Amino acid sequence: MLALFPASLAAPESDWRDVNPQDLVLIDTNYGQVAVELAPEFAPNHAARLRALIRAHFYDGLSFYRVIDGFVAQGGIGEGTASTKDHPVADADLSKWPPLKAEFDRVSKPEPDFTPLRNADLMAPEVGFENGFSVARDPGEGREWLVQCPGTLAFARDNGPDTATTEFYIVIGQAPRRLDRDLTAFGRVLSGMQYLQKLERGDPDIDSGVIADVHKRDPIIRMRIAADIPAKDRPAYQVIRTESKTFSDALELRRHPTSPFYFRKPPPVLDICGVPVAVKRTTP
Amino acid sequence: MLALFPASLAAPESDWRDVNPQDLVLIDTNYGQVAVELAPEFAPNHAARLRALIRAHFYDGLSFYRVIDGFVAQGGIGEGTASTKDHPVADADLSKWPPLKAEFDRVSKPEPDFTPLRNADLMAPEVGFENGFSVARDPGEGREWLVQCPGTLAFARDNGPDTATTEFYIVIGQAPRRLDRDLTAFGRVLSGMQYLQKLERGDPDIDSGVIADVHKRDPIIRMRIAADIPAKDRPAYQVIRTESKTFSDALELRRHPTSPFYFRKPPPVLDICGVPVAVKRTTP
Repeated sequence: MLALFPASLAAPESDWRDVNPQDLVLIDTNYGQVAVELAPEFAPNHAARLRALIRAHFYDGLSFYRVIDGFVAQGGIGEGTASTKDHPVADADLSKWPPLKAEFDRVSKPEPDFTPLRNADLMAPEVGFENGFSVARDPGEGREWLVQCPGTLAFARDNGPDTATTEFYIVIGQAPRRLDRDLTAFGRVLSGMQYLQKLERGDPDIDSGVIADVHKRDPIIRMRIAADIPAKDRPAYQVIRTESKTFSDALELRRHPTSPFYFRKPPPVLDICGVPVAVKRTTP
Repeated sequence: MLALFPASLAAPESDWRDVNPQDLVLIDTNYGQVAVELAPEFAPNHAARLRALIRAHFYDGLSFYRVIDGFVAQGGIGEGTASTKDHPVADADLSKWPPLKAEFDRVSKPEPDFTPLRNADLMAPEVGFENGFSVARDPGEGREWLVQCPGTLAFARDNGPDTATTEFYIVIGQAPRRLDRDLTAFGRVLSGMQYLQKLERGDPDIDSGVIADVHKRDPIIRMRIAADIPAKDRPAYQVIRTESKTFSDALELRRHPTSPFYFRKPPPVLDICGVPVAVKRTTP
């Protein structure tokens, strides 16, 4: 069976963008390290909050307490449960982390910052890429937002838009696009999705998937900002420039595959959450 | 955050269909048992081949040798590699398993066997459900086929449509719809996706994701047809009747959610691969 992630790793160096270490979040789990790139330009206050929480060691020793297969892995204190009794929290004074005003969308960027996918989408008037992130937009409103794809990082919230405080989730299943623009998304996983997929699951039919037994929850061993690690010791990543010809050529090849594998050429339509945006790690 | 898999488990008994033990495939992995329901009516020869392979103990002791995160877990002998040297194969005489003629699609069934989703789809003229399976169709051609969603079971193949022999895959990531009607899909996972998600991954950029080191591959401990296990010892499952009012009501509630969680009501459009089709296990 054919390879589906070809070619773009051979792109010239100028087609790669370095990930800013201030935007690179490292999550150490029992199974390996997950690297997430923040998109602070989409949700500056949420990105700042996550950085502050990480630097207060808020998450270290907490857990992925709500993990629903095919949906999300949610981490933090564990809403409505007593996880803090079993996992010492460095700074669990929640009064320090008041609810954030929602950052569901922002003013749209013009091309070439935005690279349109150039085909229809089921849920939004237009979709494409900005800086390696999958974006949906409404040209009529002039607003755009990050799409809820596998690997998308967002803050969880309660009822009411402005209720996010400390809990985050990462999408681990089929894109839950119905959550688009209704939760504040502000990053995406660059590597390590396979470690999130190993996390202990909850039962979605019981307590919304919260794992009741705190001892069964997989820990967040620690979370760090790469910039806080000495340069020689930290991982570094590059992301393909989604505004590059290399990337648009890759989209075109995916839309019109030339591989003899395809007996029936697929419809020339791409799923915004099904297009791989190439990433490479540049440190050992 | 809200639960996304509500209600249908409270459906009356008449809204549930028993899974035929002849169609229930049990895959024992290192992490737990995966239950798959075959859809022989979509691909009778492929379903018969899989049953025959299972009954010949072909897969027992083989492995998931090609596992690409976000895409597929492929099991069997391991194309182009020498996995049989390390995993004793009860019946590795491949001449016994000649290539199958493709069963990519079939003549469409009329309603009410087919329950339309009643909204657009990115890749097909029409989508809906039959007997709990996600189906796409082309009314002009009068043909229909199983959709490549997370959990879909299909036979792998080489170049050329009629080349499937023994290797199978299960989708473990964002629906690879571009493979629709181009590989023979003939079943779906009822439970145990989280165990497939724990499988050791290959590198999609190296040898198409085939795991070179056979010792790193996670084994297929054994595969069985439930009907071959004494009734008192085998698991049994029920699937919600997708032609029932219970199911259409669940679709409607998903399309127009009433939960106060939704600040911005999502577009009233459902993704054929994002709608959960409820399953329950009726044995301990």
